[in-house]
Amino acid sequence: MVNFTIQNVLIAFSDDYATVDVQIIDGAIAAIAPNLQVIGTAIDGKNKLLLPGFFNAHTHSSEMWQRGIMSVFPLELWLAELYDFAPLDPEQVYLSALGTAVETLLSGGTSVVDHLVLIPGLELETIAIATRAYREVGIRAFIAPLIQDESLSAGIPSGESAQKHEPYFRSTAATLEIIEEAVRQFHRPDEGINILVAPTGIQLCTDALFQGCTELSDRYNLCRHSHLLETKAQEKLAQEKYGCTAVEHLKRIGYLSDRTTLAHCVWLNDADIAILAETQSTVVHNPLSNLRLGSGIAPILKYRQAEVNVTFGCDGASSNDSQDLLEAIKMGSILHNVTNSDYQHWITPRQAVEMASLGGAKGLNIADKLGSLTVGKQADLVLYDLTNLSLLPRTDPIGLLVLGRPTNVVNSAWVNGKQIVADGKVTTINVDELRQELFNRSQWETKRKSETVAQIEAHYRTVMGL
Amino acid sequence: MVNFTIQNVLIAFSDDYATVDVQIIDGAIAAIAPNLQVIGTAIDGKNKLLLPGFFNAHTHSSEMWQRGIMSVFPLELWLAELYDFAPLDPEQVYLSALGTAVETLLSGGTSVVDHLVLIPGLELETIAIATRAYREVGIRAFIAPLIQDESLSAGIPSGESAQKHEPYFRSTAATLEIIEEAVRQFHRPDEGINILVAPTGIQLCTDALFQGCTELSDRYNLCRHSHLLETKAQEKLAQEKYGCTAVEHLKRIGYLSDRTTLAHCVWLNDADIAILAETQSTVVHNPLSNLRLGSGIAPILKYRQAEVNVTFGCDGASSNDSQDLLEAIKMGSILHNVTNSDYQHWITPRQAVEMASLGGAKGLNIADKLGSLTVGKQADLVLYDLTNLSLLPRTDPIGLLVLGRPTNVVNSAWVNGKQIVADGKVTTINVDELRQELFNRSQWETKRKSETVAQIEAHYRTVMGL
Repeated sequence: MVNFTIQNVLIAFSDDYATVDVQIIDGAIAAIAPNLQVIGTAIDGKNKLLLPGFFNAHTHSSEMWQRGIMSVFPLELWLAELYDFAPLDPEQVYLSALGTAVETLLSGGTSVVDHLVLIPGLELETIAIATRAYREVGIRAFIAPLIQDESLSAGIPSGESAQKHEPYFRSTAATLEIIEEAVRQFHRPDEGINILVAPTGIQLCTDALFQGCTELSDRYNLCRHSHLLETKAQEKLAQEKYGCTAVEHLKRIGYLSDRTTLAHCVWLNDADIAILAETQSTVVHNPLSNLRLGSGIAPILKYRQAEVNVTFGCDGASSNDSQDLLEAIKMGSILHNVTNSDYQHWITPRQAVEMASLGGAKGLNIADKLGSLTVGKQADLVLYDLTNLSLLPRTDPIGLLVLGRPTNVVNSAWVNGKQIVADGKVTTINVDELRQELFNRSQWETKRKSETVAQIEAHYRTVMGL
Repeated sequence: MVNFTIQNVLIAFSDDYATVDVQIIDGAIAAIAPNLQVIGTAIDGKNKLLLPGFFNAHTHSSEMWQRGIMSVFPLELWLAELYDFAPLDPEQVYLSALGTAVETLLSGGTSVVDHLVLIPGLELETIAIATRAYREVGIRAFIAPLIQDESLSAGIPSGESAQKHEPYFRSTAATLEIIEEAVRQFHRPDEGINILVAPTGIQLCTDALFQGCTELSDRYNLCRHSHLLETKAQEKLAQEKYGCTAVEHLKRIGYLSDRTTLAHCVWLNDADIAILAETQSTVVHNPLSNLRLGSGIAPILKYRQAEVNVTFGCDGASSNDSQDLLEAIKMGSILHNVTNSDYQHWITPRQAVEMASLGGAKGLNIADKLGSLTVGKQADLVLYDLTNLSLLPRTDPIGLLVLGRPTNVVNSAWVNGKQIVADGKVTTINVDELRQELFNRSQWETKRKSETVAQIEAHYRTVMGL
């Protein structure tokens, strides 16, 4: 492991900044103070800002293949279109995991939670190849294999009509067995690869699946990750399925915990919010996806006032359509100013940075090791070049970073003390080759028609009152 | 004038794409068809998308000096802080106009409407130096000198209390005389420099000022540009001032027209919207600023359904804090999906591109000359590199451009047929020198205290019920 010392770098300190040196020894932060002795390689931090790495705390990497082309649809129809054209080739999964890692890294993220869509029949292969991609890039990966045990149409409320759904193609037990095998093969937290239990959400999962996941989580000390109440349709569906809110139900079956991260959380009421606080669950806010799909504006200021932990995700690139974390952080902050006229509750740039770093670490149950510039914590660090035009003139560096539209500002990034971005370039893989591969395996297209959408759209419009 | 032919370039055609050659002769589009003869310089358009240049239809260039550092405040308090620290040096105005032009250009804009804050006592000098900056860059400029004839505190509703305001430091007549002189000296539409009449808005302008501007607009054929109902406080204020809505009042005094562009338009009712449609006024949507300041979400889908012309602006960099038009277009599209559950009304990427180009041209009364790839129109064009990682894999190019987070994708840009961006770099000015100047004339800072905010905050909170 290479030791190094970043010299004369700006860090956030109290409510101001300080210019310090930062020593990294054996992958951890060993000292932070002015004028330290240089241990290992000296890195020039002048005119740069050092922050803890952010968490891209919810995404689906293989959605990158369909970004830009998905229809402007709400989630339920969008999902039907998405699955009609989902990539089924492990090599595609590999390339989109690389692409997701690169875009995350170059926008300040050092960790990614990949709610990974599994190729049917190639489930472990899908997990293996995503693991390989993240290991190659060197980003810290939280691979959350997306599982369900009900078929897609069950995710839309029935309304007045009686709906019948095809059974899911694989049994709940077989699905849980795949996850347990994935844990045995790939879960290596010390090497930066984590497997999570990740039932997609109440809309497509039985209680048996949630409970099986909870058992695996307890047995192997795994984090839990799901979608929660992304759309109004899911709010309706929960009432149909459980006769109570989804949050009440998930609490009752024991799924909520301090290592449970819940993506979206748009349609929660005040009692639900109290349950998230009480169970110490984490909300992963995906503002861009929630807008693109018309899902709604998550009540983030209410979460913060209730002391629910909140962090940010890009969501999959088919619903965003980017993996730029700084964009998600900006939008996830300023969007909420229109939901509360009292500006004293608005999210400040410094709070946003803390949500994106420490908030992610808390949600993934590793706040003791990551998420802040603290002596003893692991060195997942990002160094921003403050001389880029998009961060000039000089004012408040964190304000510029969060509220501006920074471009090419990540100078360096380290994960566990290993440098994986230097001089603005990813050093671990050849990004030009990746671009070429993505180019070669795709073509410009504008017209495609989802058969599933054609089948379900009329019912969707009826049940949603459109 | 240099003639040129872009070969084998993708353009939007009907609801699909076509690969064509585009001939530019004497600054205008002479032909669009496959396999044209090369006239002048041949430009390789392979794997590139050609679109008409966008309009950054509302900004305040000198706000760039305070981006990143403005408090998270609503408009009325934010404005007080802004003016307490406004740059008063013409050289700063020059540099921020350059910076605004560069960021606009590198995000697809070939025209900028600069609602230019004038340095008191140096009004014509301010206009002269901004004009010089835009001429140097070569961007098409619509300089809208920001004028008012009431003092800042008059912009906050009185509520129950009796408020007394200082008179404005300059008479209405003297202000109008400055604008008329600016028109004589700088208004040169054929050279790409336009002066607009631009009373800031009902919150700080008397009827005499609006009417004087209308007269100048009629006499010199000038476009009209104002803020309109950006905040709830302004909605209240209009009722206090006029006993009717601001839109009703502006219609009554003859300010609304087919060459009137109105920034923000957040707090309009249905009758107001009908008036905008009837008068053929244009809404300039500034989504990021409206979020950052908590102003609200403008009812853009309602405007579109009422056939009100809508285009996009970044707004000044103190309320955004970027001049990236692609960001404004993305947010200005997807934000509205949460305001209408029927996705059939949502803005598609192609519609967004048309709003940003033809919508801007309509608002500025030059749709016969600009805003679309049409033979005979002037060549304000942008060529996007579709091989950039942020636009891969290949799917729908316009979907990727609008819904993604494109970075470094503008390969070339022309204004009136003159190339001002080539190979991703601005060719007309030295951007590295600009960066250096912006760096040298600023410093990192986090703490400053606005005296005016301290004076008015208590009254603001009372009148807004906070």
